[in-house]
Amino acid sequence: MKKQLRPTVSTREIYDGIISGEILSLSRAITLTESQKASDQIKADRLLMQLLPRTGNSIRIGITGSPGVGKSTFIEAFGKHLTSLGKKIAVMAIDPSSEKTKGSILGDKTRMAELATDPLAFIRPSATQNSLGGVAEKTRESILLCEAAGFDVILVETVGVGQSETAVRNLVDFFLLLQLAGAGDELQGIKKGIMEMADGVVITKADGENEKKAKLAQVQFQHALHLFQPSDADWRPKVLITSAAQHKGMAEVWKMIEDYKVHTQQNHFFNKNREQQKLIWFHERMESMLRKKIFESGRIASKITLMEQKIKQGQLVPSAAAKELLKLV
Amino acid sequence: MKKQLRPTVSTREIYDGIISGEILSLSRAITLTESQKASDQIKADRLLMQLLPRTGNSIRIGITGSPGVGKSTFIEAFGKHLTSLGKKIAVMAIDPSSEKTKGSILGDKTRMAELATDPLAFIRPSATQNSLGGVAEKTRESILLCEAAGFDVILVETVGVGQSETAVRNLVDFFLLLQLAGAGDELQGIKKGIMEMADGVVITKADGENEKKAKLAQVQFQHALHLFQPSDADWRPKVLITSAAQHKGMAEVWKMIEDYKVHTQQNHFFNKNREQQKLIWFHERMESMLRKKIFESGRIASKITLMEQKIKQGQLVPSAAAKELLKLV
Repeated sequence: MKKQLRPTVSTREIYDGIISGEILSLSRAITLTESQKASDQIKADRLLMQLLPRTGNSIRIGITGSPGVGKSTFIEAFGKHLTSLGKKIAVMAIDPSSEKTKGSILGDKTRMAELATDPLAFIRPSATQNSLGGVAEKTRESILLCEAAGFDVILVETVGVGQSETAVRNLVDFFLLLQLAGAGDELQGIKKGIMEMADGVVITKADGENEKKAKLAQVQFQHALHLFQPSDADWRPKVLITSAAQHKGMAEVWKMIEDYKVHTQQNHFFNKNREQQKLIWFHERMESMLRKKIFESGRIASKITLMEQKIKQGQLVPSAAAKELLKLV
Repeated sequence: MKKQLRPTVSTREIYDGIISGEILSLSRAITLTESQKASDQIKADRLLMQLLPRTGNSIRIGITGSPGVGKSTFIEAFGKHLTSLGKKIAVMAIDPSSEKTKGSILGDKTRMAELATDPLAFIRPSATQNSLGGVAEKTRESILLCEAAGFDVILVETVGVGQSETAVRNLVDFFLLLQLAGAGDELQGIKKGIMEMADGVVITKADGENEKKAKLAQVQFQHALHLFQPSDADWRPKVLITSAAQHKGMAEVWKMIEDYKVHTQQNHFFNKNREQQKLIWFHERMESMLRKKIFESGRIASKITLMEQKIKQGQLVPSAAAKELLKLV
């Protein structure tokens, strides 16, 4: 058991701190939700329950793009623009020292140094856990806590590997894809499935000589996006260009997101979508806990591995195997 | 209990019939797998087990597109081309009288009248069941039976609604998207998520005056597809144009699919993908049976509905609700 370095703070104190907008209390609450200890989990659940009526009053934005596209640079410039408008922003950032991402071992606070010292900004590396489901789970709870603490804009940055984008899509209102214009005519290939999830696309690093290429890329993307039906939100994604270095384009990105919010509130998609996301959270959590309980028990797990081998080798029909396994459960 | 109109055929007889390529035995076997009766299920499982070593020797092609794009017309022309090459083809067709699709109440055999009378072709409407998971499940088993009966090409037509394309994607080697060229410059919007699943795109009805528009659409799609990274199969999807009415383009479509098979066998993706699909089948089946057993029991189901209401109204934190429900299970 970890040695206590300071007296335990009560959930009452954390609650009071959060509703006063105290960053320290917010950090403590997020740490509680990420803790594996059962006693911390109980406190975290109680806090979330008490704070629930104070959540929801923000716009939640997911930001994705391949490594090297300039996510941190964009987030910093975009974040500074928002704080200049007086908005409180929270950034759930992916720790670049995690094994899944390239880049040097710098803390997020170094990556976004200017934003990190902004009194209206709060940057929190998201919990790095083994299962992606675990990261999304904890991020959902962190989003609620940030909203209870009065943050207006929540930015969730995804690392761009595996199913991370799909996981984040279920957490946010608006999903922003960052893309680089390539050398000459080529565009850096978009990971399949991402473009159709995007509510907006931003071509980054449109400075100096790159500006021409960025504008060309913008047109190509506009043509490609035009091929798709409008989203369920009845919204056609827009393609913008930005230069974080020259602080260009940030106001246009924010306007696009504000327009999206107005549009989706008018057609009621905004709230319906959030309701759906809450139900998805509920079902995903149930199924992951059930799966852990049943399928990860030693006896069942080894039986499954054995069956998978036989299935791959064409010795067992998958449906029959499933029926046989269920009898054991 | 349904009245027996003829003596029960033994699984031995059906087995012998299938390995001799007898269509009647194949139909009987498929009917057994679709039956809800436990005794039929046992026979079906035994048959599949015995026939398993004889499966796998086909190319499985999924075909999707919005209603009106000309799926049946295309399948008929494409099918006739394949039988003209001496290939035995099986078509798992979606019943157009099902409530989910538009169109008149015609049997599939009328929709593809010429193909239906071709001795090398077998057309089977896929089982219409309430859950899409159910349809995919039965189609998987039907595919195996058709392969055991010696069919070289299996075409699985999806109805193009809901998650049907994703379900079919997990059943086939090659996924073909049919698109209409629109009036003037506009293209009929692609349902999001479909384009990125396609291994090939066919612009249909490229006859007469439409040919020009079809060629324009072909270019637009080629540009759009070029934006994406190659698939996991390291394959760049091709865009072709066809006119079923003029019997044009079918040979090119078949060549594209043959090239795909050669390419993915060379880079080993073909078999790895089929292995993955078998495992997906196994896990999907287990989880759907588990879900049925646990979550659809009266007591749990009503508790879930109650909790969902509270969650939507912001009175219950989804993660806490999930934990509470698991205690009941």
